[in-house]
Amino acid sequence: MSDRAYQVFEEQQKARGIDLEKVKEKLKALKVETPSWGYGDSGTRFKVFKQQGVPRNPFEKFEDAAQVHKLTGICPSVAIHIPWDKTDDYDKLKEHAANLGVSIGAVNPNLFQEDEYIFGSVTNSDPAIRQKAEEHLLECVDIAKTVGSDVLSLWFADGTNYPGQADIRKRKHWMQESLTRMYRAMTPEMRMLIEYKFFEPAFYHTDLADWGMAFNLANKLGPQAEVLVDTGHHAQGTNVEHIVAYLLDEEKLGGFHFNSRKYADDDLIVGSVNPYELFLIFYQILDAEATGSEGVRNNAANIAYMIDQSHAIEPKIPAMLRSVLNVHTQYAKALLINLDEVKEAQDRQDVLGAEDAVRRAFEFDVAPLLRAVREEIGVPVDPMKTYLESGYGQSILSRGKGGASW
Amino acid sequence: MSDRAYQVFEEQQKARGIDLEKVKEKLKALKVETPSWGYGDSGTRFKVFKQQGVPRNPFEKFEDAAQVHKLTGICPSVAIHIPWDKTDDYDKLKEHAANLGVSIGAVNPNLFQEDEYIFGSVTNSDPAIRQKAEEHLLECVDIAKTVGSDVLSLWFADGTNYPGQADIRKRKHWMQESLTRMYRAMTPEMRMLIEYKFFEPAFYHTDLADWGMAFNLANKLGPQAEVLVDTGHHAQGTNVEHIVAYLLDEEKLGGFHFNSRKYADDDLIVGSVNPYELFLIFYQILDAEATGSEGVRNNAANIAYMIDQSHAIEPKIPAMLRSVLNVHTQYAKALLINLDEVKEAQDRQDVLGAEDAVRRAFEFDVAPLLRAVREEIGVPVDPMKTYLESGYGQSILSRGKGGASW
Amino acid sequence: MSDRAYQVFEEQQKARGIDLEKVKEKLKALKVETPSWGYGDSGTRFKVFKQQGVPRNPFEKFEDAAQVHKLTGICPSVAIHIPWDKTDDYDKLKEHAANLGVSIGAVNPNLFQEDEYIFGSVTNSDPAIRQKAEEHLLECVDIAKTVGSDVLSLWFADGTNYPGQADIRKRKHWMQESLTRMYRAMTPEMRMLIEYKFFEPAFYHTDLADWGMAFNLANKLGPQAEVLVDTGHHAQGTNVEHIVAYLLDEEKLGGFHFNSRKYADDDLIVGSVNPYELFLIFYQILDAEATGSEGVRNNAANIAYMIDQSHAIEPKIPAMLRSVLNVHTQYAKALLINLDEVKEAQDRQDVLGAEDAVRRAFEFDVAPLLRAVREEIGVPVDPMKTYLESGYGQSILSRGKGGASW
Amino acid sequence: MSDRAYQVFEEQQKARGIDLEKVKEKLKALKVETPSWGYGDSGTRFKVFKQQGVPRNPFEKFEDAAQVHKLTGICPSVAIHIPWDKTDDYDKLKEHAANLGVSIGAVNPNLFQEDEYIFGSVTNSDPAIRQKAEEHLLECVDIAKTVGSDVLSLWFADGTNYPGQADIRKRKHWMQESLTRMYRAMTPEMRMLIEYKFFEPAFYHTDLADWGMAFNLANKLGPQAEVLVDTGHHAQGTNVEHIVAYLLDEEKLGGFHFNSRKYADDDLIVGSVNPYELFLIFYQILDAEATGSEGVRNNAANIAYMIDQSHAIEPKIPAMLRSVLNVHTQYAKALLINLDEVKEAQDRQDVLGAEDAVRRAFEFDVAPLLRAVREEIGVPVDPMKTYLESGYGQSILSRGKGGASW
Repeated sequence: MSDRAYQVFEEQQKARGIDLEKVKEKLKALKVETPSWGYGDSGTRFKVFKQQGVPRNPFEKFEDAAQVHKLTGICPSVAIHIPWDKTDDYDKLKEHAANLGVSIGAVNPNLFQEDEYIFGSVTNSDPAIRQKAEEHLLECVDIAKTVGSDVLSLWFADGTNYPGQADIRKRKHWMQESLTRMYRAMTPEMRMLIEYKFFEPAFYHTDLADWGMAFNLANKLGPQAEVLVDTGHHAQGTNVEHIVAYLLDEEKLGGFHFNSRKYADDDLIVGSVNPYELFLIFYQILDAEATGSEGVRNNAANIAYMIDQSHAIEPKIPAMLRSVLNVHTQYAKALLINLDEVKEAQDRQDVLGAEDAVRRAFEFDVAPLLRAVREEIGVPVDPMKTYLESGYGQSILSRGKGGASW
Repeated sequence: MSDRAYQVFEEQQKARGIDLEKVKEKLKALKVETPSWGYGDSGTRFKVFKQQGVPRNPFEKFEDAAQVHKLTGICPSVAIHIPWDKTDDYDKLKEHAANLGVSIGAVNPNLFQEDEYIFGSVTNSDPAIRQKAEEHLLECVDIAKTVGSDVLSLWFADGTNYPGQADIRKRKHWMQESLTRMYRAMTPEMRMLIEYKFFEPAFYHTDLADWGMAFNLANKLGPQAEVLVDTGHHAQGTNVEHIVAYLLDEEKLGGFHFNSRKYADDDLIVGSVNPYELFLIFYQILDAEATGSEGVRNNAANIAYMIDQSHAIEPKIPAMLRSVLNVHTQYAKALLINLDEVKEAQDRQDVLGAEDAVRRAFEFDVAPLLRAVREEIGVPVDPMKTYLESGYGQSILSRGKGGASW
Repeated sequence: MSDRAYQVFEEQQKARGIDLEKVKEKLKALKVETPSWGYGDSGTRFKVFKQQGVPRNPFEKFEDAAQVHKLTGICPSVAIHIPWDKTDDYDKLKEHAANLGVSIGAVNPNLFQEDEYIFGSVTNSDPAIRQKAEEHLLECVDIAKTVGSDVLSLWFADGTNYPGQADIRKRKHWMQESLTRMYRAMTPEMRMLIEYKFFEPAFYHTDLADWGMAFNLANKLGPQAEVLVDTGHHAQGTNVEHIVAYLLDEEKLGGFHFNSRKYADDDLIVGSVNPYELFLIFYQILDAEATGSEGVRNNAANIAYMIDQSHAIEPKIPAMLRSVLNVHTQYAKALLINLDEVKEAQDRQDVLGAEDAVRRAFEFDVAPLLRAVREEIGVPVDPMKTYLESGYGQSILSRGKGGASW
Repeated sequence: MSDRAYQVFEEQQKARGIDLEKVKEKLKALKVETPSWGYGDSGTRFKVFKQQGVPRNPFEKFEDAAQVHKLTGICPSVAIHIPWDKTDDYDKLKEHAANLGVSIGAVNPNLFQEDEYIFGSVTNSDPAIRQKAEEHLLECVDIAKTVGSDVLSLWFADGTNYPGQADIRKRKHWMQESLTRMYRAMTPEMRMLIEYKFFEPAFYHTDLADWGMAFNLANKLGPQAEVLVDTGHHAQGTNVEHIVAYLLDEEKLGGFHFNSRKYADDDLIVGSVNPYELFLIFYQILDAEATGSEGVRNNAANIAYMIDQSHAIEPKIPAMLRSVLNVHTQYAKALLINLDEVKEAQDRQDVLGAEDAVRRAFEFDVAPLLRAVREEIGVPVDPMKTYLESGYGQSILSRGKGGASW
């Protein structure tokens, strides 16, 4: 049936003018980075439920991440978090990764878990603390050099909880100063991705509260600084794909931290709350690739797709797999949009025709297509089933409880 | 100047038809319960900043809480959380409290920090876990009997993170079953206050998500069950004072967990984000006291005012003091509303006149009034200043770091 | 290809244990009521863009609505709004409808467009205005009797814009009094559906602000009063399907006003913002039908599905068609959930398995299924295409501009 | 008593180190522009309640606005909206204004009420419509020249209702092109204030959705373009004063449209929902004036304070008066913040001390201060009372119903 399902699908898409070979090429070329910390324990402020089998160190995290890549074929790199993944011997970690068929991806500094950062890190009014934070940032640049990573992914928990608590404008300048120094330390190949967040853990003001603040800062720093969009870091009701299109047009979209949210920064499995939103994000990216200026097209081609989740109650590896599969699925659907058809409807100001041309692509079942792609790249056609039957989940139980967490 | 300030204030209010003696009586009669856990360490999922001097056990928590009562005169009881405040000898705790001039207030069961509750406590599909949860609830009823408390304050973290994860309707029934058994175990003097919450830690659905669900459950349980309003547990934009007025009219308002929020359940100092909202809540309560039916008036007179906060970055005792002072301040302002004036404007459908009659009371400076009240009840006129100069904060530093936390 | 697409689909679903004949039965049995006012002009407070061809009177609205039924086969009734659809001769309207193959559905009173209602209708402090409002409600009961409708659908714009403006508790009682009188006037076959709304046009408090207030009122009125869920009338982030499941369990879910929103009550085409939410609503309903008590099953079987939209910028008939098609699509997808599979995963507390069992059904392409259903009931397989080619849209242009609007 | 109240207040503030003479100077220097359209009828999409006595033309609007200035002394200019205030003879209008003691303030183009703008004005895909829109903008520049106004205040309703409806990136460029032409037409004295809005009337995407988009556009246009902050145009939970501080630091804060909201863009009386927010906005501005760089100080000194409201149910002139009085009140309170004290607490990272230093100023009753200021500038000490007793409201009833509206 599967073959026939694909045949029917192929005919259907051909009739719509979709070049499936190109679609498959794109699906094979997609790279989704998974985060080392997504394999460890995490939770809410109320409770971190410790799971058995969680990796105890960066090496084990890479082993788990390698499973995801082995099963999906699109997750060849793994983001690391310093100091969570700190090690005496990065060469060994790099080699370990290589042996597992993966590599070290974005380097994520951590500026929110030291006692000194209670009132901020790079925005702290105490210069000694700002310097400590800056040194950590520079250390991360060095680690990136060591491990051969060219992406530095920055999220700051910095902000305040009460009106008057701190000088908002001064903090803005301090952050710019620290990042300027970090920027200068980067090699020309490196990119600094600046993340913003609406709130949490700061509850009155967050120093980088929205895309506009991250964008303005990136502009001041230079061409190697770009904006990182975490899909869960917006006010309720925000049109995220609009921000994506906007940043692409400004050639400043660095990458994504994918996850889902219904309320705040819930960090749920990607695509589990509103899969249509993820599809619409990809629609904007593909549209930019197709019709943007050279700079815009270059930007669209160089987006760092990364997952950033917190699996509070679900098993970690399957949760990551589900996220990667959901990303692949929505990307596949977006690739079925006939952009010419959309443009024609837009040009005749046919609201419903244009909406339909986009939405219809979302309604196709891309399972046959993804099965075909998987066969062609030599990964299991049903990665989740293969994983669950593989015994890997059982094999790691011996790690016990109390592994890495944040 | 202080005396003259009060004289001017008195004349001003007299001219408005406000009976200051009655106002002062009300201000002296207000009781605000502080929570034992508000004196311990707490934080966000990202970091709990441990503070030096935090109480190491329930006895020390009561010592800190007693400071707040000593300084304000309106915090004679302290809510406890089981098992955080579990002790082998509740009589000793009770006596300790009495010696400090305070008493044990609401008993709060904890159904969110055991590993078994990962998928729910009283709504867990596993009957053994539901039974465990139920037994804890019954244990709390027993503890309430032992310590002489007549308020059981229930908050459930129960909910799900994903569509389909669990059977929403079954869970509703399970919760009702467990609470029915708990309800039956209560003595006739006891009240069960049922709290609701919009989200967190559950991110897809929360079993008791809003006042309507808590209210319906309380109705089914009986007259000793009432709704507990936590001011931070609503969707953005919710009119909390409307819910307060509604519950009063239904004679089902059990009490409050006061705190502030700008975004989600931020648990900040009461009155620090939108003090006007707190004032408007008190306006509805005072209006119900003045013009409600006998049942409504009784309800209004029996509200349990409690604080429930999480002081992530600020010193605990001063944060609690500030909250209590802010509650006193907004209550004082609400007492200055000339309700007759409001009614007259309402009766002539004078929108601006009615709004003005309410808002004007908010604009008065009640500092002279509160100083007078404090003098009359024999507490410091400036509780915060007295606290900061008292040396108490320094004296507890010897407790070290790493005290009680959640 | 279409035939083969269906064959492949059929095999696939059979393999999953789905009885497609039952699914098709359900799809044929679905009834979605369209609103007369959805065919007229409407817009925002900034501008109503008048379209050419908009119906000039209730008779023409029914002609347009009949097109939607003719093309979809699932829209046999049309809701009316009084006085917008007021006529001297309801028998004539009824006959006109019958000749067109449709009937008159829910009767919707209008209590927000008379000058007297500036401060409320049934909650107005002026008894004369409350009486006027009440008389209108009774008039609508009479109209329902005349036209043979058994559904009265009530939405109140009543509320206030400023704190203090009115007595919230008195208004609550006044509303209950008026509805009690209306309730008594209904025949035993009639149902009163009570709608709630988070805000707009009232900006401080809305008398029926949420499902809890509508539910409590319906409970007080009696078994013929139920709650009407408008999918756009909630706070941001609200889990609407949870409310649906809750009301079903209480046997108080009267019906829906379907539409989409990204921000407030945007009244966009159903399923155009988050189609997954619509699917999850149907999942809860189908689950209640399958596993609920007799009362719950009865409730689920008697839900009034209605559309309530405002097509500000798009052509009216195609917009309505799109909405109906989207409802049919999401209902079809929900029918593909293997509820046994979900239950089994739920029973073993397999979060990801249960989520997958639900979500997977959403990912199927139900176009072949819906084509088959349409063929079997004798409507066009592509209703939108048929409509656009039918010339109907052109034929009504002669109505000119300036038709019915609100 | 009034005198004594002021004496007590004066002593109190002196003791706090506040220079009341400077405070009074600032209070006298504040200028708040009222909008001509705020005196006319307006409402919601459901109903515009027409009031008796509403001005029938721009001349009468200026008469009403002049009342507000006469009574408050701080509203010397009146914003106009084209074409609502279009006239054959602007010199006559200018003279009329001068005779009334007021002047013509910001010129507001209107690009949302022509049928052509159904799919956008300056972002419309039809070049002819874009040109029409551009010509209107240029016309407004001319009008500004004619009437001697140097502020052009731009709000665009442009956006889309559905995914795919239009090309988001192209629209971004089209807007920039049109505004570039408008910018070039301005005289060197003129400023272009660019407003943003989260949503409404566009419900999917709004071309200028947030401060970041307006800011980036203003940056591209040049130094005469700045951002206009409408306090009601943000997502729920947005920290508006943070945006204000941020824009000040970038020297790009052009002005405000003041109003209040609880939910969406409710356009209620300023300061009626959360007066503390308004106070905190002024705190940021005063802090920038005190401690900013020269450029920042200049920006803070040149903010255009404007009111933009929609008085749906309340009498227009008193509603405007109330708004102006509320602005004056919160500004007065903010002037009582001892900024040195705040800084000192900030410098020692004393969260509660800094919060207290800000919040305490909010709690003072500034009525005696404002009465003193009013006496000194020769306006009534109680402007609302004077207005209500003046008979002006009655005198304009002869205008009848059906005056200007939008």
